[in-house]
Amino acid sequence: MPRRGTMADVARSAGVSPTTASFVLAGRTDMRISDAARQRVLEAARALAYRPNVTARSLRTRSSRTIGLVSDTITTTPYAGEVIRGALEAARARDHLLFITETGGDPAAGSGLVNALLDRQVDAVIYAAMFTRHVDPPPELDGGRVVLLNCLAPGRNAPSVVPDEIEAGRTAARVLLGAGHTRGIWSIGGRHALPATPDGWFAGNERIRGLDEALRAGGAALDGVVECAWEAADGYREVRALLAGGRRPGALVCATDRVSFGAYQALAEAGLRVPDDVSVVSFDDQDFASWLRPPLTTIALPHSELGRVAVELILDPGPLDATVHRVPMPLRVRDSVGPPHENG
Amino acid sequence: MPRRGTMADVARSAGVSPTTASFVLAGRTDMRISDAARQRVLEAARALAYRPNVTARSLRTRSSRTIGLVSDTITTTPYAGEVIRGALEAARARDHLLFITETGGDPAAGSGLVNALLDRQVDAVIYAAMFTRHVDPPPELDGGRVVLLNCLAPGRNAPSVVPDEIEAGRTAARVLLGAGHTRGIWSIGGRHALPATPDGWFAGNERIRGLDEALRAGGAALDGVVECAWEAADGYREVRALLAGGRRPGALVCATDRVSFGAYQALAEAGLRVPDDVSVVSFDDQDFASWLRPPLTTIALPHSELGRVAVELILDPGPLDATVHRVPMPLRVRDSVGPPHENG
Repeated sequence: MPRRGTMADVARSAGVSPTTASFVLAGRTDMRISDAARQRVLEAARALAYRPNVTARSLRTRSSRTIGLVSDTITTTPYAGEVIRGALEAARARDHLLFITETGGDPAAGSGLVNALLDRQVDAVIYAAMFTRHVDPPPELDGGRVVLLNCLAPGRNAPSVVPDEIEAGRTAARVLLGAGHTRGIWSIGGRHALPATPDGWFAGNERIRGLDEALRAGGAALDGVVECAWEAADGYREVRALLAGGRRPGALVCATDRVSFGAYQALAEAGLRVPDDVSVVSFDDQDFASWLRPPLTTIALPHSELGRVAVELILDPGPLDATVHRVPMPLRVRDSVGPPHENG
Repeated sequence: MPRRGTMADVARSAGVSPTTASFVLAGRTDMRISDAARQRVLEAARALAYRPNVTARSLRTRSSRTIGLVSDTITTTPYAGEVIRGALEAARARDHLLFITETGGDPAAGSGLVNALLDRQVDAVIYAAMFTRHVDPPPELDGGRVVLLNCLAPGRNAPSVVPDEIEAGRTAARVLLGAGHTRGIWSIGGRHALPATPDGWFAGNERIRGLDEALRAGGAALDGVVECAWEAADGYREVRALLAGGRRPGALVCATDRVSFGAYQALAEAGLRVPDDVSVVSFDDQDFASWLRPPLTTIALPHSELGRVAVELILDPGPLDATVHRVPMPLRVRDSVGPPHENG
């Protein structure tokens, strides 16, 4: 963008030294500069579309008013674009820009990208993951101002911002208990999202923990947990198999709205109505959750809020520590949960 | 990120002048520097985690190897995250970073964001829209190196990269003609995506143009065009009304996969099967298109390719002109189009 005047252009046009022009444009009044010269500098700056060069300024102030965001594939995941929106809005509200880049899921790319950001003098880095998990951030970030977004790195001295999945599990339990369900409750998806994660996903483990805990507190329990991957085809296949095996669940807690999408298809094929015959509750609140018939009751991933909280932690003054910040997941009540089909 | 050594630190540690250190680290061999001094500088640079300061370098070379991307709400739209992926990958392949920011749909924010990018010395700017449309880019971009992504600005001397919607309309026609449909063909969604756009959307106008043209070339024609917004609820409502009005379409061309989603629901309620009774083809290829039963035949928005082409235009040497680059929209053949229910 070569058409803007530089400080030297402004000084030349105003007939003053670059030092004088720079003092005028910095608004300094502690130097003796005539009003006429001051006026000529301001007019020349306007005529030449001069703007202060943040790049040069950052060399002096050591602040570029820029935050780097390195993620795996967050920017290109339909489920998590809202993370970026929340971060962008919070950064804009405090006059910062976001530098967004991503590894595309290749861990080896992390160091290179972090170095590229550091080369551009970012003030701080948000290190983000698409789904909540443990990560090993590149060593280049050690000692810098870093917030972990949707991920955890035990042993590193950086705060994490994650969805409150335990409480979300409790919320799902309370929704079902509130409608009168105490048995015939199945988890579809469980902890594992197999085959990718033999130890369970963070979200899966924490939700089942909260779900179990709150069901027991209400005098109920899960009838069963079906471990499967978390896509629509998995929900369809597993619920179909459950019904074919003679099970007749009264309520399904699906790991994702995508699993619910497939569960709806399997229930419809079997002639079962939602919620008259089977109640369904899930997690995420993807766009199609409200298009399903009946619209799906689900507990939303707080994407925008995750992004906002991460930026505010970064920009608030003071040191950062390894606190884990849990962001509430709001319940979206729609029409997929009703009273049990058979009472007692 | 204060922990990296500067060039001055490296020079001090190696016991050479900053000029000598700088020549060694720039790889210059046209200066007389002893091998021992050269070795000490390289070791000090390694020990101090020295990296060249791109910010300082950009003041000399006038290149920051950084591209700014300003969009309305593209980064936070589930349908267009792939645009960012394509742009990021192309930028990375050529050792550039992307600076992503967005107006959040507020046109007044455009100038401020462009200035913020120019302040950070971006080499070029990609100006992007969520859905293809005419835009009025901020005047700050005039004269700079600019590519318009998914938008058009007649009168500005900048290239545009848009999906080839006319050809996509022709493709939809050929899919139906190939299956034997020549009548009972309805467009659901048409040109307008009412009520937002009284003059029609770019995508709507161009698709209908291509659809009409190719149907006529095949001896067929549209039976009707239903103008409506392009969401799932609109597809459901309009197809339901069409059937309730006694129409019995043989094939639906839906403006988006979301409209198809609603159309499927209305057809199922009326006891009509896809594709046995009614064929459905649409545009976009959103994730759920392949989860529907039957999986939906659709013509994909080439999001990743749009982003890639925009970055490559920016980075290829040579002047930019106002050419409109049309990126092909690939057909995804699935199971929602079959032969007409009634022959003849």
